[in-house]
Amino acid sequence: MKLYWCPQTRSLRLLWFMEELGQSYERVLVDIRDKDKPRDPDFAKASPMGKVPAISDGGVHLSESAAIAVYLADKYPSTGLAPAIDDPLRGAYLYWMFFVPGVVEPAMLEKVAGFEPNPSQFGHGSYDQMIKVLETGLAGGQWLLGETFSAADIIVGSTANFMKGFNLLPVNATIEAYIERCLERPAYRRAIEINEAGA
Amino acid sequence: MKLYWCPQTRSLRLLWFMEELGQSYERVLVDIRDKDKPRDPDFAKASPMGKVPAISDGGVHLSESAAIAVYLADKYPSTGLAPAIDDPLRGAYLYWMFFVPGVVEPAMLEKVAGFEPNPSQFGHGSYDQMIKVLETGLAGGQWLLGETFSAADIIVGSTANFMKGFNLLPVNATIEAYIERCLERPAYRRAIEINEAGA
Repeated sequence: MKLYWCPQTRSLRLLWFMEELGQSYERVLVDIRDKDKPRDPDFAKASPMGKVPAISDGGVHLSESAAIAVYLADKYPSTGLAPAIDDPLRGAYLYWMFFVPGVVEPAMLEKVAGFEPNPSQFGHGSYDQMIKVLETGLAGGQWLLGETFSAADIIVGSTANFMKGFNLLPVNATIEAYIERCLERPAYRRAIEINEAGA
Repeated sequence: MKLYWCPQTRSLRLLWFMEELGQSYERVLVDIRDKDKPRDPDFAKASPMGKVPAISDGGVHLSESAAIAVYLADKYPSTGLAPAIDDPLRGAYLYWMFFVPGVVEPAMLEKVAGFEPNPSQFGHGSYDQMIKVLETGLAGGQWLLGETFSAADIIVGSTANFMKGFNLLPVNATIEAYIERCLERPAYRRAIEINEAGA
């Protein structure tokens, strides 16, 4: 399995995920900042939008961090990273997987770009509301699904830490404690080291 | 099962999905345009961001269109709306489910708001590239997964039709023919009627 990634990007989410998954994988660096550099043809297949992270896994070529995480966590159920389809937590798990692209990313886009879209066109909700929902989601336990760590914590936790790194996170003890718990995971620390080493 | 929805919103996606799913459901109207109207307490549980569509299904409360579709299509495998976890098409299916929130929505946000985010902050790719990827995705058959219709066609097809309705879709024979095929489905036509009748 190949992971296409680039240091200092949202690839870090998937580096962490891969380190938690524990399956062997090969990291392939794609310099997305240099548009003119020739790309691995398999990368174009895996990521038609040219985004990182992306994977090639046998005949499966896939991009979008959360899509990859849902796919692989289901493929390797023994890792316990996803509740099974008939698990009562499956719905909440999927909610959090879609919460990042569906709510957090557009809220960040607004925050950083500083514009106010017409709510009748784009109803993803406000930045403050997003922070509140995340805080409430963490009220029930250590992790988003309670006491069980899941791939949702990788996608959401890394995004929370990303927001913190860009000074987009308001002071919030619940979310900060959650980020600290994430950072205690050896797999996340390994991913951060790889990201900082750039290889 | 309750579906919380509001006419003339992205709820239409889920109306179509529910009509394809063929399970009995109750529609509950939520007037999201009137922020002061009291909400069904179950709606707040299902949609902490206050977005429609959302569902309550026994103990499961869930929002985000694509999350609901992934959840329910897996819960009712006999409907054939989702490839099973071990199906070689599962990866592509999940890609398209995340393509709408992860790529199409931010691209639309840019197009409508008319701003250019810094690509080093938001690398979701350009609007034109998104259209090209969708066109290429449809080159292999009638539907996104080839000859088999899936929930991905509901999420992506309804979004393509939504873009067309707002004059955001460039002239594109492949995508227009796809929208026509979607509109031939009786379930989509029923959903559009419900949406127009507002009940």
